[in-house]
Amino acid sequence: MDEFARIRYWTEGRQSTALLQEQGVVLGIGDDAAIVETPPSVAGGELQWLMAVDTMVETVHFSDATMEAFDIGWKALAANISDIAAMGGEPRHALVSISAPPAWEPARISRLYDGLFACANAYGVAIVGGDTTSAPLHMVVSVTVMGTVTAGAAIRRAGAAPGDAVFVTGPAGMAAAGLHALLAAAAARAPLPQSASALVQAHQRPAPSVRAARMLAARGTITSLNDISDGLASEAWEIAEASGVALALRESLLPRSGSMTAYAHSCGEDPLNWILYGGEDYMLLGTIAAADAQAAKAELAAAGLPMYLIGEVEAGPAGVALIRDFAERGSGKLAEPQREALAKRGYNHFGN
Amino acid sequence: MDEFARIRYWTEGRQSTALLQEQGVVLGIGDDAAIVETPPSVAGGELQWLMAVDTMVETVHFSDATMEAFDIGWKALAANISDIAAMGGEPRHALVSISAPPAWEPARISRLYDGLFACANAYGVAIVGGDTTSAPLHMVVSVTVMGTVTAGAAIRRAGAAPGDAVFVTGPAGMAAAGLHALLAAAAARAPLPQSASALVQAHQRPAPSVRAARMLAARGTITSLNDISDGLASEAWEIAEASGVALALRESLLPRSGSMTAYAHSCGEDPLNWILYGGEDYMLLGTIAAADAQAAKAELAAAGLPMYLIGEVEAGPAGVALIRDFAERGSGKLAEPQREALAKRGYNHFGN
Repeated sequence: MDEFARIRYWTEGRQSTALLQEQGVVLGIGDDAAIVETPPSVAGGELQWLMAVDTMVETVHFSDATMEAFDIGWKALAANISDIAAMGGEPRHALVSISAPPAWEPARISRLYDGLFACANAYGVAIVGGDTTSAPLHMVVSVTVMGTVTAGAAIRRAGAAPGDAVFVTGPAGMAAAGLHALLAAAAARAPLPQSASALVQAHQRPAPSVRAARMLAARGTITSLNDISDGLASEAWEIAEASGVALALRESLLPRSGSMTAYAHSCGEDPLNWILYGGEDYMLLGTIAAADAQAAKAELAAAGLPMYLIGEVEAGPAGVALIRDFAERGSGKLAEPQREALAKRGYNHFGN
Repeated sequence: MDEFARIRYWTEGRQSTALLQEQGVVLGIGDDAAIVETPPSVAGGELQWLMAVDTMVETVHFSDATMEAFDIGWKALAANISDIAAMGGEPRHALVSISAPPAWEPARISRLYDGLFACANAYGVAIVGGDTTSAPLHMVVSVTVMGTVTAGAAIRRAGAAPGDAVFVTGPAGMAAAGLHALLAAAAARAPLPQSASALVQAHQRPAPSVRAARMLAARGTITSLNDISDGLASEAWEIAEASGVALALRESLLPRSGSMTAYAHSCGEDPLNWILYGGEDYMLLGTIAAADAQAAKAELAAAGLPMYLIGEVEAGPAGVALIRDFAERGSGKLAEPQREALAKRGYNHFGN
């Protein structure tokens, strides 16, 4: 098979004509560039386009011990869809660049595309083009996603104001715990504990919060929004710095996954560390006008989507504090609250 | 420096506010996604968006022997700009993903960004976002470019019709010769011959044919268009297959760079091989209604841009033929023309 035959083998017939039409795809994979137009469902009004790229590198973001080819494809696209969601936008089109080393035979690359297209079809995203190259040793997958938002309606990091409520749309730390479980099992050459399956799923097949983001964005009261792919503390810092405010998070209000907490205790890890600094979670962290916080929470709950109010925005200087008000386990009462500054760190690709 | 500080160090203050405004950039580097809108200069009429991605991998597309960091950045963007030009479009926005191994210290990465921004500013492209990750051993640079075209005006591969003229906008093969010169000099630990400097430039800092493409596209008579990054023969095959026609190219009409031909002879290589199969050139190959071919050529010439009419489109089946009518050197007359089928091969990343 030559390069073009392989690209056809990997990509042909993977998406319905209906999906491609719905997303305004004029010309997809195969020419110098893809052509897209404003999707037919967009009624009047000016659109703006959102663009984001995310890259996953073998040994840095995944290895044979942590992810199968399908998962890699799924997650590479999911991470990008999450970036569009975190702007309040609708993800529509994707380009996929794959640099494959010789050890990745075409069938394995095809499973990676299985994961990419499964995620694309689950979220209604049209894969419209890409590039395939060889690589010497390590697989690199880079995905670009384009989306749309009504002009002026994108939610940035910079709008949080003192008095706003801080929210998160799910329990952070599960992906970090899942990664820990995968690496521990590989090191011990032991099977994964059954109890870790939801954690492993969180690491391998994250579900970007598109629906929650769209519902929240439509309310018009969200003042800042991030996904928490770099970790809760780091993303809170980004909002704080961009907005020139301080975020005060209450430890007692941070949602905790039961399986994550149990798994952390079983291996002597601190669950709070994973919650704050774990990263690779794809829930949303944001701020909302306090007056609308409960109504927003109720709207999401009615759709089966969680939303947790975890703190308040305070006047600057920029910073993130954790109010340590969590009860000692078994004590039956709240501890005396202590205010602690959170480090501005998270998952950092340059290791410092 | 943490990751965000490094991104600022690499990217801050690199482009003028005027350029960003002209390209409709609402929000650039720094949030989950970039926001762009229809550029203010676009007057009425429906736009379509063009999207393309190209990836360059250390050891596959470049090495210490062939390109400096500046060149890598320049070429990674130039290759993408060329893809947008080859659709008849206007390149506008770019996302840059860089996966850097430890051996690439921040100052070297900064020189790569120097090249990226030099190319971006030369072509008026706004760099609006990206991703930076680490990599174990080899640098990988992936660039996505978005551009616009008037709705319906994009030029695909599939429109070539029998009777059309085939054209190319410059002499192919220079980049392949430049690469040969670079590798030969490195192997011999010898300096590059002065005579190879234009060839090396063609390999390291290709100039995408945006102006020529825009002028040609505006005529409305171009029936297919490709850049020749995969080699003249391969790109001719793509047009032939997409259009269901045969392309007959005349050897005597193929433009030849004097320095390329001289360099090829000096090292016992066949210049025609580089012209047909060399790849990594960024001229345009296309087809045009025969009645408009001379007028198009004259218009480009008036702007100082070359255009060579190199053959004809014939009825299918799909294929590419070379009419061997080139004079023996020094014989003073044309050889008896022979028709030869050209192989469907070019620069193939999977090596077959």
